[in-house]
Parts: sequence; structure tokens; C-alpha cells
Amino acid sequence: MRQWWTVVRYMSRCAQKKYEPVSISRSLRDNTPEAYGIMREALIKIERSTTVDSMPMLTEKELAANEVIMREKEVELEHGYLEPTSGSADQPMSKVLNTIRGTLLFQLLQKMPKGGILHAHDTALCSSAYLIELTYRENLWICTTDEGCKAIAFRFSIEKPTVKAMEECNWESMEEFRERRGEKNVVKYLLRRFSMFPVSSYESNNAAWKDFMSIFILIDGLLLYAPVWRDYYYHALEELHADGVQYLELRSVMPNLYCIDGEQLDVMETMEIYRSETERFKASHPDFIDAKIIYAPLRIVEPKACEEYIKTCTAFKKKYPTFLAGFDLVGQEELGRPLKDFVEPLLKMPLDINFFFHAGETNWYGTSIDENLVDAVLLGTKRIGHGYAIVKHPFVMDLIKQLDIAIEVCPVSNFVLQLGLDYFNHPAATMIANGVPIVISSDDPSFWLAAPLTHDFYYAFLGIAPFHSDLRFLKQMATNSLRYSAMSDEDKQKAFEKWQGQWDKWIDDVANK
Amino acid sequence: MRQWWTVVRYMSRCAQKKYEPVSISRSLRDNTPEAYGIMREALIKIERSTTVDSMPMLTEKELAANEVIMREKEVELEHGYLEPTSGSADQPMSKVLNTIRGTLLFQLLQKMPKGGILHAHDTALCSSAYLIELTYRENLWICTTDEGCKAIAFRFSIEKPTVKAMEECNWESMEEFRERRGEKNVVKYLLRRFSMFPVSSYESNNAAWKDFMSIFILIDGLLLYAPVWRDYYYHALEELHADGVQYLELRSVMPNLYCIDGEQLDVMETMEIYRSETERFKASHPDFIDAKIIYAPLRIVEPKACEEYIKTCTAFKKKYPTFLAGFDLVGQEELGRPLKDFVEPLLKMPLDINFFFHAGETNWYGTSIDENLVDAVLLGTKRIGHGYAIVKHPFVMDLIKQLDIAIEVCPVSNFVLQLGLDYFNHPAATMIANGVPIVISSDDPSFWLAAPLTHDFYYAFLGIAPFHSDLRFLKQMATNSLRYSAMSDEDKQKAFEKWQGQWDKWIDDVANK
Repeated sequence: MRQWWTVVRYMSRCAQKKYEPVSISRSLRDNTPEAYGIMREALIKIERSTTVDSMPMLTEKELAANEVIMREKEVELEHGYLEPTSGSADQPMSKVLNTIRGTLLFQLLQKMPKGGILHAHDTALCSSAYLIELTYRENLWICTTDEGCKAIAFRFSIEKPTVKAMEECNWESMEEFRERRGEKNVVKYLLRRFSMFPVSSYESNNAAWKDFMSIFILIDGLLLYAPVWRDYYYHALEELHADGVQYLELRSVMPNLYCIDGEQLDVMETMEIYRSETERFKASHPDFIDAKIIYAPLRIVEPKACEEYIKTCTAFKKKYPTFLAGFDLVGQEELGRPLKDFVEPLLKMPLDINFFFHAGETNWYGTSIDENLVDAVLLGTKRIGHGYAIVKHPFVMDLIKQLDIAIEVCPVSNFVLQLGLDYFNHPAATMIANGVPIVISSDDPSFWLAAPLTHDFYYAFLGIAPFHSDLRFLKQMATNSLRYSAMSDEDKQKAFEKWQGQWDKWIDDVANK
Repeated sequence: MRQWWTVVRYMSRCAQKKYEPVSISRSLRDNTPEAYGIMREALIKIERSTTVDSMPMLTEKELAANEVIMREKEVELEHGYLEPTSGSADQPMSKVLNTIRGTLLFQLLQKMPKGGILHAHDTALCSSAYLIELTYRENLWICTTDEGCKAIAFRFSIEKPTVKAMEECNWESMEEFRERRGEKNVVKYLLRRFSMFPVSSYESNNAAWKDFMSIFILIDGLLLYAPVWRDYYYHALEELHADGVQYLELRSVMPNLYCIDGEQLDVMETMEIYRSETERFKASHPDFIDAKIIYAPLRIVEPKACEEYIKTCTAFKKKYPTFLAGFDLVGQEELGRPLKDFVEPLLKMPLDINFFFHAGETNWYGTSIDENLVDAVLLGTKRIGHGYAIVKHPFVMDLIKQLDIAIEVCPVSNFVLQLGLDYFNHPAATMIANGVPIVISSDDPSFWLAAPLTHDFYYAFLGIAPFHSDLRFLKQMATNSLRYSAMSDEDKQKAFEKWQGQWDKWIDDVANK
């Protein structure tokens, strides 16, 4: 019967009041409705104080814009694109994403200056339409199996390629391929192969990953051709820019690119292409802030191979001290090696190279996979990719808060790769409730026909954040993406100023609607 | 760069060591692999210390039984009945539940003395087979619509019933109905109507609830006939007993039962039937511990109606001071009134009547529905029904721990009623990780053709608890169900002793396999 005292003491601690009420034995129910109302209000205030609702007040203009946004948010919640069965056989996810594009809320969010994408992969950025465009380039060959039905690989070459694909297949020129199967059919077929839809066909996370990886493999030969690599990256920046993104930290496996004669280039050339295209893009888009590269090779390797990674990364750092943001290991965590296998080599990484580890991209609990979260934190990671399993590790979550590590949340990716089949149960809601710093990102938007970042903001805002969350949440997500970036403090300051100008302009536009 | 110090300080606090390491500025990465290994081990130990892994060691016999159980757990995890798509169109949930019945793990869990069911509803306990049996009782009539296709209601009566069902329909005797449609067809049809499968047909939580409620309505006239009510309850206890359940706290709306001549009985008679059948059952099943009733009328009422509830409940308490466990309000939270609307009358409930509120049975966040959790706690609830949304309310969750309130987790119910479409994302994993007390329950097993409790234990053990959780978890769940029951301390002691005898016998059986 000391409930009453327990609650009051707890609440005064949470509110960081020094005063400790006298310990008394009293039931919570021994209360007037008025006193009850006061306790209730206090508890809800304490609850909300750790979440984004504690952000500074909005300006008058922002309040006006907020009204427009909240009105549209309600419209969308009514539509219910967040129901668990969106993405089922009846209403494939690709169709839902397309319908969402037509909504007023999406259009508002698309124009909103969202800051940076801090979690995205090198060859999964551009729209499928652009990939189709690339297949019309000169000297492109395609390799097929199953009596010419199934495309396995691409390759640019003057003569018929002699390079071997992942499996036995027959090379023919794209012209022949198009003639044989009909141009319209080819476009239709490739559009299907370039994305993972319909999602409903996956029986499990593993099945989804298998299809997911097959797209990476298929498009490798198309994108690793040096001139295309350059164009693809530049085009990706253009698509990001059009989607209201001002900054990028791109995870790249840093492949060796190839030339028309089959010669392979050194990985330093790959980096140099990124750098020069970034500069070229910034020159012609003064409102764009910057881009950086996280060197992120595959985790399905022997721990010894990691030593080679470290050498390469150190070389990148030497030549590109600020353009290289840091290091990560990529690939399906549940199949690859856990981080703890790589601890010894990773501890040898020079301290000025930051880690941005993928960790806990799983819905498992109590395995070496979700325990990657422990290693990511103990290895001093600056951010965590996905961190989906963090809610099952409250101590690590507490540490993450104390160390101010941000979690890169990718809502649509987690849905498509079958970690969770609806947004209302996404663990990021619990992260928000606990005041864990998060950023919203898109992972591989190309492969699920999503906008570079807007769909992820849409789902985070409607399906993950509290229903009552508003413009303050959106603003926090945008500013977090700069705050938790790899930029220097000085560059961050400049970035914020650049972003603020665009934000103010956007607020004006929305408020006047 | 004071990361190292932050982590060490945090860990020593968690371990409740008084010693505070000297504050030093040092990167986590400035570490030898050996020192890293020690920190890692310590952190994982701290993590696991709050969960069920901190339970006392197992006896030698229990360790032997544990080996058998863990071997079967691995077999089941391989089978993957926990995949998000189990329960999809290809493999309907009812089929999955049936397949699980055939596994060795299920059979082990079924015989395991699981303690009590603390969350179940009055007319949703018995198997469909038993409901079919009841439809062969004398003087039963059925009311149909849609040209005699759709059954709407049942009624026992000598003459054709004159009572009105929920909608316009035609009464005919069960004999006529069976003759008209063919006996086999009728059985097949009714089996389908008595359960919610196939689950895949629901588009949303709301659609699932609609079908769910329609079963309650359909079977009302069949079960509210006083002699059937008595038999149904007694048979439910038999089914529970056969499923390894020793105790029950049943939530009942306490309907007025009817007699063959249409006369209605007072609700005190309903309670008296429960009491006398419980005593009769205990007399013939000495290993059964006890059963109690939670008076749980509907929440879709005006707050004023709650005053009537309190009067009725007070009368129950007076006549059945220990058989009445307490009070709750039931029905779909998302459509019914929030608890806060009832605060004024509820604060008038006599203090010796305990609350066992449903709260947070939703995957929404930041609404008056998930905030029911705040009110349940502030109203001094002894347990919380479902509490699904608690992981989005960390402060309330902390309070729940401090007040030692247990959450009644019903895995299969949450799945079928579409709160979450896979077990790996069930919020109870986060409750376990945070050391929140939980009990496993089954809600309405009749409506999804599940065993009274074993399926829920199966899913909690395989899909929700950590992969490495073992017999200690199962033992904790069983003992929790007695510890958090409404029994007096003295009765709990006796209950534990009775349970322990059965537990030891079961351990012997398993260890000898």
C-alpha cells in the first residue's frame, strides 16, 4: 500500500526535483479525482519530456505550417496505408508507394529540406527509370540463362565479353536481346528485375535477402563500367537533390571499376570519381551541402581479410582525409560473421578513422547477431546502421544515449526485407520514447522503387512517431541528420546555416498554402 | 574521447559497485583485445542479469530435463513456424497451430505444469468440438438470415423462440436446420463460424475485431442457457486441466442467464454457478489449485453506467469475498472509452476490490488508447491485460516494475487480432529484456482453435524470449502465474507446494526421455 509514495517519488526524480516527498503508506486509489488529474498530467508531461516533444517551441510561421501538415497527417492516417496488410498480395507495396506519391503530405515532405541521407548503399540509389536509360548505352552486352529467359549479368565491351558471370550464361548484345524479345517486353522485364516487388512473394527475411542480393549482382556489370559509375553517382545526387536532400554519406564497397577493354582500375580511382563528381555537383548546385564516403566492404570474409580492408581504408584516409567519413562492414548480418570475430583487426584501425557499423539489423533476440550491438558500441562506433534489435538490449540502449550515438532508422527497408511487417510495431517508436537519437534514412531506395528519402520520412512521421508528433519531429529528424554526420564542427555550422535558409523558405511556402 | 570512462562508469553503476573509476579521457578503441573481451563479457553479464537468466540455478534433474527441451527448441526453430508469413494465405494459422500440436516440444510443454491462466474470457475457453457437442442438446433453436444461409443466434426453448436476435432472422429447430442443410454440412459450417480462421482474410485490426465480436454474439444464446453455462464452465476447467493448467482467473461479463421458459436469472446466480462448479471440480481434481472470477463488464458504456458496475461488483465482493478476484472493463480498447473517462466512478470502488485492467491492447502510439496504461497504473491496477503498447511508454514501464505489476501477455491473441504479424517483433521481448514481470496467457483460445495455454507458451518460448532462454524461463512463467495471482499469501504458499509436486514429477518424466 505504499504505491502512492512510490509513484510520487519516481515522478519527482524524473522531473529532477531535489525534493523528496515524505515516505507514506497510501494507496494510489486513496485520491480525489482532482489530485488524480494532477498526477496524470505530471506523468504524461514527464513521459513526453524525453521525446521530440521536448524540442524548442516553433516560430509563428512554423506554427502556421504545422497546421497545414497536421491536417494532411490526419488525412493520411484515415487512409490507412500503414495497416499491416499494406504490401500484401491484394495491394502490393510498390502500388502503395506510388499512391502515397500522389498525396499532398508526400508532396509537402518531398519539398521539405530533410538534411542528409546517412545510410545508403552505392548501387541502390537511382530510380529504375534511370537504370533502363543506362541499358541503352553503346557496347552493352547481357548474359542470359534458361533459354535466354533470365538475365544474369551485364558487361560493356566492344567484342562479345569473355568475362564469366556468377553462373553459366550466354552473352548477346543488348540490341540482339531487344530484337529477340521485343523492346517493350525487355523494358518491362528489366523493370521487374531491378526491384524486389511484389514483396508478398517472400516467405522470409532470408528469401527477401536472396532476391535483394541478386539485384546487386545483376546490375554490377552495368554500373562498374567506369564512365557509367561516374554518371550513376552524379545522377543519384541529382535525384537526392530533387527529393529535398542536401547531404549524403554513402556506404560503398569500393569496387574495382573496369574499362571498355576489360582493364581494371585501382580502387583509388573509384574514390577519385566520387570526389570529383561530388565537387562538380556542388559547383552547379550551390544549395547542396556535401557528400562523403564510408568505406564499407563485405562482412562475409575471413577475419584475416579485414586486415586488408584496414590497409585500404588507411590509404583512403591518407589521400582523402575529410572526404572519407569512415568504415563499416556490410551484407546480411544473419549470414555474415558477427563483429566480435573482427575485433582484433578492427582495434588496429587508426583512431582517426571513424566506425559507422551496421548492427542489430535483425528481429532475432539473444544471438550473436543482435549482440553485434554490444560490439558496435564497445568498438566506439559513431552511429549504428539499423539497430533494429536495440529495444531488446536496454543497457546497450542506455549506453548509446550516454555516448550520443545515433541510430540510422530505415523504415521502408526494414519492411521490404521482412524484419517487421507493419510500421506501428517498428522498434524506432521505442527508441523515440526513450529519447535515443535517431536519423531517418533509406538504405536502398532504388530496389523498392521508393523516393530517395521522402517515403521513409512519410512512414516515420505517420507510422512510427507518436500520432501527436508534428513539425517538431520532422525538424528534429532533419537537423539530427546534420548533427550526427561526419562533418567537422565548423562544417556542421556552415551546413546548418545553408539548411536553415532552405527550411525558412519551405516553411513560408507551406504556411501560405 | 571520454567514451571509455562513460562505459566503465555506467557498467559499474549497473553492477551496483560503489567504486567509481577515475574519470579519464580515453577512446573505447584504445584497448587491447583482452581488455575488450573483459568489457564485453561484463556488459553481456549485466544485460542478462535483469532478465529471466538471472534466476536461481537449476537442479541436476532440471538440467537434464533442460537438455531435452533445448534440443527440441532447436528443432522447432529450424522448422520456422515463427516466420512472419506463417498465418498467411498459403499456410493458414489454424493449420500451423495444428502442425505445432504434433511436435515433441508442444507435447512436452502441454504436460508441463504451467500454473495459472490469468487472462481469459468467459465464453471463449472451450474447444469448438465441445461447442458442436452442445448444439445437439434438446430444445435448441437456431436463427438464420440470407435465405437460411447465415446463422445469427441460438436459443433454448420448448416452443419456437419469440426473443429477437441482433438482426431480423428466422428461427428453426436444430433438427430442422440439420435436416435442411445436411448434418455434415452443418458441422462444417458451425466449426467455421465458431473460429476466426483463416486469419489471412482480415484487412486490419478492426476487421479482425468485428469477426471476433460476431462469434461472441453468435454463441451467446447457446451458452447463456443456465444448464449449459454450468456445463460449459465445468468442461472448460477439464480442458484447462488436461492442458497442464492448475489455476484460473476468469474475466466474465457476468450475463443474466436464462431458463427454458425464457425467465432471466439474477447475476448473483451466474456467480453462484461459477462458485459451485469450481468447488465440484476441485473436489474431483485434487491436483487443481483453484479458480476465481474477475467481474469484467463492457467498456463501451457511458461513464454513468460504471456506477452500476461498481454496485454489482460490491455486491459480488460481499457475498464472495475471496472467489471474486477483482474488476476490469472489456471490449476493443480502440473503439471503447478510454479509462480516463471512468476515473471518477472508479475511484469510488471499495479499496478491497482489486483492479485488473486491460490497457494498451493496441499498436498505436500517442493516443488516448495507449495512454490507458497511464491510467491503469495510476488507478492502482494489480496487473495489466495485454499492455502491448507499454514499450512506447518507458516511464510507465519503469513504474510498473517498481510497483511490481505484472503484464498479462497473450501471444496468439495479439497475432490473430492483428496487433503484430510476427512473434519476433512482439513487445514482450522488450518487457523481458527490461525485467518487467510478465505472465503468459491465452485470452480467447476457443476462437482460434488453440490449446487452452500451450500454444501461447510455445510462441513465448520460441518467438519472444531470447533464443538462449531455457527451462528457467518456462519455470519463471509458471511460478509468475501463481505469484501475480489474486490469491492470499497463505493460499499462494499452498498453491506453490501443490504446483511444485507436479513440477518435480514432470521434470522426472522429461529428464528420463
